Amino acid sequence: MNREDIFKILDELKNDKVSVEDAYQEIKDLPFKDLGFAKIDNHREIRVGYPEVIYCENKTIPQIREIIKFMLTKNNNILATRATKEMFDKVKDLDNKLKYNELGRTITLEVNEIKKTDSYIAIVSAGTSDLAVVEEAKETASILGNKVKVITDVGVAGIHRLYARLDIIREAKVVIVIAGMEGALASVVGGLVDKPIIAVPTSVGYGANFNGLSALLSMLNSCASGVSVVNIDNGFGAAYNASMINQL
Amino acid sequence: MNREDIFKILDELKNDKVSVEDAYQEIKDLPFKDLGFAKIDNHREIRVGYPEVIYCENKTIPQIREIIKFMLTKNNNILATRATKEMFDKVKDLDNKLKYNELGRTITLEVNEIKKTDSYIAIVSAGTSDLAVVEEAKETASILGNKVKVITDVGVAGIHRLYARLDIIREAKVVIVIAGMEGALASVVGGLVDKPIIAVPTSVGYGANFNGLSALLSMLNSCASGVSVVNIDNGFGAAYNASMINQL
Amino acid sequence: MNREDIFKILDELKNDKVSVEDAYQEIKDLPFKDLGFAKIDNHREIRVGYPEVIYCENKTIPQIREIIKFMLTKNNNILATRATKEMFDKVKDLDNKLKYNELGRTITLEVNEIKKTDSYIAIVSAGTSDLAVVEEAKETASILGNKVKVITDVGVAGIHRLYARLDIIREAKVVIVIAGMEGALASVVGGLVDKPIIAVPTSVGYGANFNGLSALLSMLNSCASGVSVVNIDNGFGAAYNASMINQL
Amino acid sequence: MNREDIFKILDELKNDKVSVEDAYQEIKDLPFKDLGFAKIDNHREIRVGYPEVIYCENKTIPQIREIIKFMLTKNNNILATRATKEMFDKVKDLDNKLKYNELGRTITLEVNEIKKTDSYIAIVSAGTSDLAVVEEAKETASILGNKVKVITDVGVAGIHRLYARLDIIREAKVVIVIAGMEGALASVVGGLVDKPIIAVPTSVGYGANFNGLSALLSMLNSCASGVSVVNIDNGFGAAYNASMINQL
Amino acid sequence: MNREDIFKILDELKNDKVSVEDAYQEIKDLPFKDLGFAKIDNHREIRVGYPEVIYCENKTIPQIREIIKFMLTKNNNILATRATKEMFDKVKDLDNKLKYNELGRTITLEVNEIKKTDSYIAIVSAGTSDLAVVEEAKETASILGNKVKVITDVGVAGIHRLYARLDIIREAKVVIVIAGMEGALASVVGGLVDKPIIAVPTSVGYGANFNGLSALLSMLNSCASGVSVVNIDNGFGAAYNASMINQL
Amino acid sequence: MNREDIFKILDELKNDKVSVEDAYQEIKDLPFKDLGFAKIDNHREIRVGYPEVIYCENKTIPQIREIIKFMLTKNNNILATRATKEMFDKVKDLDNKLKYNELGRTITLEVNEIKKTDSYIAIVSAGTSDLAVVEEAKETASILGNKVKVITDVGVAGIHRLYARLDIIREAKVVIVIAGMEGALASVVGGLVDKPIIAVPTSVGYGANFNGLSALLSMLNSCASGVSVVNIDNGFGAAYNASMINQL
Amino acid sequence: MNREDIFKILDELKNDKVSVEDAYQEIKDLPFKDLGFAKIDNHREIRVGYPEVIYCENKTIPQIREIIKFMLTKNNNILATRATKEMFDKVKDLDNKLKYNELGRTITLEVNEIKKTDSYIAIVSAGTSDLAVVEEAKETASILGNKVKVITDVGVAGIHRLYARLDIIREAKVVIVIAGMEGALASVVGGLVDKPIIAVPTSVGYGANFNGLSALLSMLNSCASGVSVVNIDNGFGAAYNASMINQL
Amino acid sequence: MNREDIFKILDELKNDKVSVEDAYQEIKDLPFKDLGFAKIDNHREIRVGYPEVIYCENKTIPQIREIIKFMLTKNNNILATRATKEMFDKVKDLDNKLKYNELGRTITLEVNEIKKTDSYIAIVSAGTSDLAVVEEAKETASILGNKVKVITDVGVAGIHRLYARLDIIREAKVVIVIAGMEGALASVVGGLVDKPIIAVPTSVGYGANFNGLSALLSMLNSCASGVSVVNIDNGFGAAYNASMINQL
Repeated sequence: MNREDIFKILDELKNDKVSVEDAYQEIKDLPFKDLGFAKIDNHREIRVGYPEVIYCENKTIPQIREIIKFMLTKNNNILATRATKEMFDKVKDLDNKLKYNELGRTITLEVNEIKKTDSYIAIVSAGTSDLAVVEEAKETASILGNKVKVITDVGVAGIHRLYARLDIIREAKVVIVIAGMEGALASVVGGLVDKPIIAVPTSVGYGANFNGLSALLSMLNSCASGVSVVNIDNGFGAAYNASMINQL
Repeated sequence: MNREDIFKILDELKNDKVSVEDAYQEIKDLPFKDLGFAKIDNHREIRVGYPEVIYCENKTIPQIREIIKFMLTKNNNILATRATKEMFDKVKDLDNKLKYNELGRTITLEVNEIKKTDSYIAIVSAGTSDLAVVEEAKETASILGNKVKVITDVGVAGIHRLYARLDIIREAKVVIVIAGMEGALASVVGGLVDKPIIAVPTSVGYGANFNGLSALLSMLNSCASGVSVVNIDNGFGAAYNASMINQL
Repeated sequence: MNREDIFKILDELKNDKVSVEDAYQEIKDLPFKDLGFAKIDNHREIRVGYPEVIYCENKTIPQIREIIKFMLTKNNNILATRATKEMFDKVKDLDNKLKYNELGRTITLEVNEIKKTDSYIAIVSAGTSDLAVVEEAKETASILGNKVKVITDVGVAGIHRLYARLDIIREAKVVIVIAGMEGALASVVGGLVDKPIIAVPTSVGYGANFNGLSALLSMLNSCASGVSVVNIDNGFGAAYNASMINQL
Repeated sequence: MNREDIFKILDELKNDKVSVEDAYQEIKDLPFKDLGFAKIDNHREIRVGYPEVIYCENKTIPQIREIIKFMLTKNNNILATRATKEMFDKVKDLDNKLKYNELGRTITLEVNEIKKTDSYIAIVSAGTSDLAVVEEAKETASILGNKVKVITDVGVAGIHRLYARLDIIREAKVVIVIAGMEGALASVVGGLVDKPIIAVPTSVGYGANFNGLSALLSMLNSCASGVSVVNIDNGFGAAYNASMINQL
Repeated sequence: MNREDIFKILDELKNDKVSVEDAYQEIKDLPFKDLGFAKIDNHREIRVGYPEVIYCENKTIPQIREIIKFMLTKNNNILATRATKEMFDKVKDLDNKLKYNELGRTITLEVNEIKKTDSYIAIVSAGTSDLAVVEEAKETASILGNKVKVITDVGVAGIHRLYARLDIIREAKVVIVIAGMEGALASVVGGLVDKPIIAVPTSVGYGANFNGLSALLSMLNSCASGVSVVNIDNGFGAAYNASMINQL
Repeated sequence: MNREDIFKILDELKNDKVSVEDAYQEIKDLPFKDLGFAKIDNHREIRVGYPEVIYCENKTIPQIREIIKFMLTKNNNILATRATKEMFDKVKDLDNKLKYNELGRTITLEVNEIKKTDSYIAIVSAGTSDLAVVEEAKETASILGNKVKVITDVGVAGIHRLYARLDIIREAKVVIVIAGMEGALASVVGGLVDKPIIAVPTSVGYGANFNGLSALLSMLNSCASGVSVVNIDNGFGAAYNASMINQL
Repeated sequence: MNREDIFKILDELKNDKVSVEDAYQEIKDLPFKDLGFAKIDNHREIRVGYPEVIYCENKTIPQIREIIKFMLTKNNNILATRATKEMFDKVKDLDNKLKYNELGRTITLEVNEIKKTDSYIAIVSAGTSDLAVVEEAKETASILGNKVKVITDVGVAGIHRLYARLDIIREAKVVIVIAGMEGALASVVGGLVDKPIIAVPTSVGYGANFNGLSALLSMLNSCASGVSVVNIDNGFGAAYNASMINQL
Repeated sequence: MNREDIFKILDELKNDKVSVEDAYQEIKDLPFKDLGFAKIDNHREIRVGYPEVIYCENKTIPQIREIIKFMLTKNNNILATRATKEMFDKVKDLDNKLKYNELGRTITLEVNEIKKTDSYIAIVSAGTSDLAVVEEAKETASILGNKVKVITDVGVAGIHRLYARLDIIREAKVVIVIAGMEGALASVVGGLVDKPIIAVPTSVGYGANFNGLSALLSMLNSCASGVSVVNIDNGFGAAYNASMINQL
């Protein structure tokens, strides 16, 4: 609601085209509209395929069930992350299109067909142990409407495997690199690819890995310039971020 | 260089259209070309305005002088970060177009005029103490060819200042948020803006701030979904990343 | 017991109004009375509705049962925190007015009706995952005799939800802010409200959250001036503190 | 600006008592007023004696000089914290009433006489090494209009010194406890006094003190219930907080 | 075995008072005897009542069973720490005098009656949650032949409880202070008692307690001078140490 | 593949000694051969007895089963580390020569008889609790073709036990020292033995051990010069490293 | 002051043998006497040679000068620790018997001749870099009236140096072990000596030493049973503790 | 000195071929000889070129001067590490062959010509900022008698530079990898080279680098199997270790 909109209402009021009551109704919402909150929300509701996201950790099954039920009334796509198999079993009767990705621990529902982007997000991971995070990222990116290509098991200990897939990575619009242990893959990819890289440290490792601290610090200190980092194991956040970039 | 390219050279050789020497010249670079290293380098050199970057910390003045002298022969733009005033004073005779930003600790040289992007990067910062990082980011983004808009002193303790500038932030293509202390600004901006956000924790603060750890952890744990993070005080890295996204 | 009190006893003794034995009885408790220990205890016992508090973690069920039984003889209100459902099931036969709050893990017993304050404590929380701490704080504040208003799910990622409830928060006498992940809510509320704020970091989160360290550091480094902090997940401590302030 | 205010303007417009332009001027600020930001600011400006606060760390002397000059035009009291002696020497010509507290590193200016509260804040500290934080807290509390009583050098290693001053502490409305090393004083005072306690860990100590971490963790884990904590060495924050409570 | 001893043997040999073989037998053990290893071992074996100690954590039941069986052949007293109830149940058939302390998780066997010291060790603890460590310390000190007096539940939040028992603590020869949370008890006792104090931080607490780190740092930074510290929850180590001092 | 090799192929092609197709086959692998990846792989495959290594942690049983099945087709020796008993039970039907070391959690298969080295690796450990890591190291070193001598239970608290075995340690070609708690054994052995020492900190301990951090830091700070360190509990890595050195 | 004492005064009062005023004077101090604070102080003042201790860190020179001047009036021995050379130069005019130990950074004054104990404290240190802490411990122990024997440079990297001095260490009544880097010396001495050992980690080292954390953790996790630990570099605390034990 | 040696001396004594005094002289050293300490020392003294090593940090110039003077009398080569320029200037008069490496901070003296090994140590480093550590390692390895090849500035951000030098690295007998920031170079080299790798994390970096912690953790968690690690910036230790391996 810009200057013109406000003047228009005031003019209409002055010229008796609207009542004081109606003018008030328009104007009383100014704070929120001006601040754009509604804009975001509208934007979200009208963009077909945009999912509502539920973070299931620390939520009870009745809570999750309630949220999904409510969402189904809004006819939106749904993405639930960090969902256990038990959670899925207790909600799957709500809609027979609900799907569960056991490795990625996601529940998804595609009520509106999602049109995918032409450009794609490359998801690159170091070891088979990082696959849970890969799957969370993949499911997130997909339901957000992105084409995704996944390249796994290309850790730096056998770097030729990475080179063999480098073309696919280079042609992506944005790259997600997922790695545990020492997280060196982010720096290596960052040195080879001229695209924005979102690095996801994983908690894969033991001992001085300190539950992902090792990979996290590595990625934050990457000597390659185009790398930014999200929280440990945060496949969802990386994909959400990558989706924003891919759809610019 | 694909299968066809190689067959073509070999056929030409077999048919005496090229000499063994020439064929060798083509083929000997296979490893590097296939791996794309040269591609990056060429790409970097031909893109007008792309700067060479020197990280001055831990380098001696003679080393920096030597590097700048060499770069001047290549006729490229130059960006040196973490440069002290003394460093600048000892190198400025090399070219009278060398400029120093004291707050941002950058030395820049624009030998080729840089054409700026139409879309812009918004750099948003919390307090006046974060300005050194802001300046490093601004100088980096600028010399990389980006239009930049800077919004400072909009920390969450007086959040109305942020709202007053929200339109400028929302119309950016990508947003850099720079904040020390508790780094809450990244989450707040992340909740209000539907653009990729690159958060830079700064070391501003004391005590339980632990030299920026507080803001770093805050930003990594942001409840807003579109936030990725770079190293503490890494204004350069954020801007480099933002530039990649802004120029997609 | 001040100078006058002591002189009075000594005078009475000198003038044979009291026996040596009685004077001794008065005087022998001097250390404790002067130091005020007894004062506290008396104060606590005579203030109707003041509960005895049991911290159940690391206590065995027989121990807890014993303590509650003893307390019942003193006819005081009771608050037990960090009590499991099993603990409650094993003690509930002791008095049929014992109540259990499963989410907040509290056992309460109101033997004396509690008169509530006119002013109130606002408990503000970021996400549904923080509700356990909210409930502990609410039960504590209530049995300590405070009116309480609870505002949940107003995390900074959707900050308009907070604004919609800001009036209620502003009219409180003291505000408890409960948030996990990056804990930014404390700073944002601190910037909007001119009341003492007691911030409770929660252990909600994962990865670089380090079991609440992220929110704890955020809150300690808050750029808003009126924020003080209690231990991670310490809903009880925050409410105890807020109660002291609310009842000043 | 409530419903009535808005209707009044609209009525005046409808009845041609104000022009469209004037009505617009009133209405365009709705967001801010409704959200109450201005209320805070106004509130702050009209309350006599309320100081503007400048955090000098990381600011240059010209910046500080500029801020003070601007503030002098507003005729407000001034408090600058973390100010070096050099900073003071370079700004003291601006107004001959500017005062410097060398130990507390504060600059203060009392342009409006400050009326002190009847109730007081007790500031209790463990050792002589904590005096810098004590002074910062005392200056802050004073210029915010509070009566203050300071009790120093009552660390737990010689606990009888604390008992000798206990009455003064008990009669305060709110207590600030400042201690370094192991910070045990906060728990001991918390066990003896039934008032809200704001604990300030200091960085006094060495080795496994880790620059105040030891006292910080101690205070956060205090077994006494009424203790909340601010950042290490944050005498200002504690006093600001205590002032809010003292003036409730 | 000093110079004289060696000369004596050599003289005897020279004078044919001992055979080469016998001289060799004396001399071949020089390294060990001179270095004193054997001395320690002999010393340990001949001192009646001195127990062999088994640390059960990370040992399998068959391993523990084997060790106890072997020890029984040596007719020594036995102390096993960190023993689960299951471990005890699986070894108790070995000797019907084996005893289990469930809270302290110790298995003890007194084959030789232990004569207790006249002086005693005072074990002082803060809360009921610290009792497991208290019991481990008490069992250890007892089987090592010390008289022990235990004073529990005298945490600093209700410091008058400590004063009521101070005489007992002061008359001990050495004092063990066991406390979790903020561990302030060690400093307070250290300030009141002129005896060596061995402080044991416990892992009792939550959140910013970080599994005992809080109490550990507190105790290491104690402002009271006579305090030394052992590992978190190490009741055994404290008692072993105290026993050495008590038996000097 | 050097300049001569390439010229030779091209000459042969030019002179019709090879077909274009064959020349292509040779040349297309240039990147990998030049970079040496294939060399490694070939090297690994042709060295009889060299095992493929599977890190089982975070892998599902079907995944492990699949990998072993594939390996069996290659007729190589197999080493799987961090394998649970359940994992072994679910794969042992694949080949009746598969062996399980329960303590070391390794699965091994020796299809090709392994010829052992003449020189040997000494594996020295401090306590019985470190045996799991000892076994992992021993199994790894053995299947990699090394003679191994194991010396256990020679922790520094009873240092004479170490001296009694010093000759065996000194005659090794390389020494692995495995110790938890304070990890002092590495320094002591490092001061007595003039051979490369690979130190393995273990997570054995509690409290301020912080899951092996204590031993890790000890070993990294060893005042003995010949000590290098691998990750906590990484018996495999130490043995792999030692094997490389032993087989130089 | 026990029951009899009080009755006696009251009886005297009743029988007019003392005035009310005098009785009050006796009784008003009850809290302190009963609690024994005065007892400590008296005890300290009458024990000849017992020094007053000044911790100079964070104190200004005028403060230190003031304290020493006051002490000189009490005719007590003086020990000031962490004193810089400049501090000494600015106070040495106060008494020409003031002595400065530059390495140990102590100022001492022996006004009363100190009679030394027969038994002695052994101070054992690892490297020449630890000498500052050795000197602080030695000066402290000496002025507290203990015979001291110092054995330096016996670090575990050349363990034969330790053995050569073992007899002296074994005959001490209590042993202080001072070591930086990995701090292994405490465990080795602890395994060889059957006396109470007070370990002092020093901040000597670099990198993963983390300013003494490495040695601190090592010593806390010592596998030798008789070791307790004081703060990093706390030579004073170790000596104070050892003195208490030596003088039992 | 075995059984036969001892019998021989005893026989000679018995048969009056040696005096008691001489027999004593032989026998009194048994402990040391048996334990082999002397063996090490002798070994060290007779091996030509083996240097005495002085760690200068925390040593005073007079101490260093004294040590070097003493060493000169023994006619050994000398290596002093962590020596400042000032230290060198104050000792260089002692022998005009003393040399200073300013970047590596080493003082060396080659009194005996050192014969170099045929095999060599490769020292590989990531950035120019790591050169100080490179130089320390190079000087150490050289004076220990090793041929050394240094490959610098091959960090993973421009990985083609590494490939261009891979042959030199692969032909080394042992490889030292020196890298700061995220330390990824160790893993990459470890994946490409089948030689023992000693990784040296450097403190180069800022922010979340935490003075080398980032690279340290990376290297300890390396997914490449042949990597062991020394302390941060410990070029000396890595070279000492590599020398042992290179000279096996």
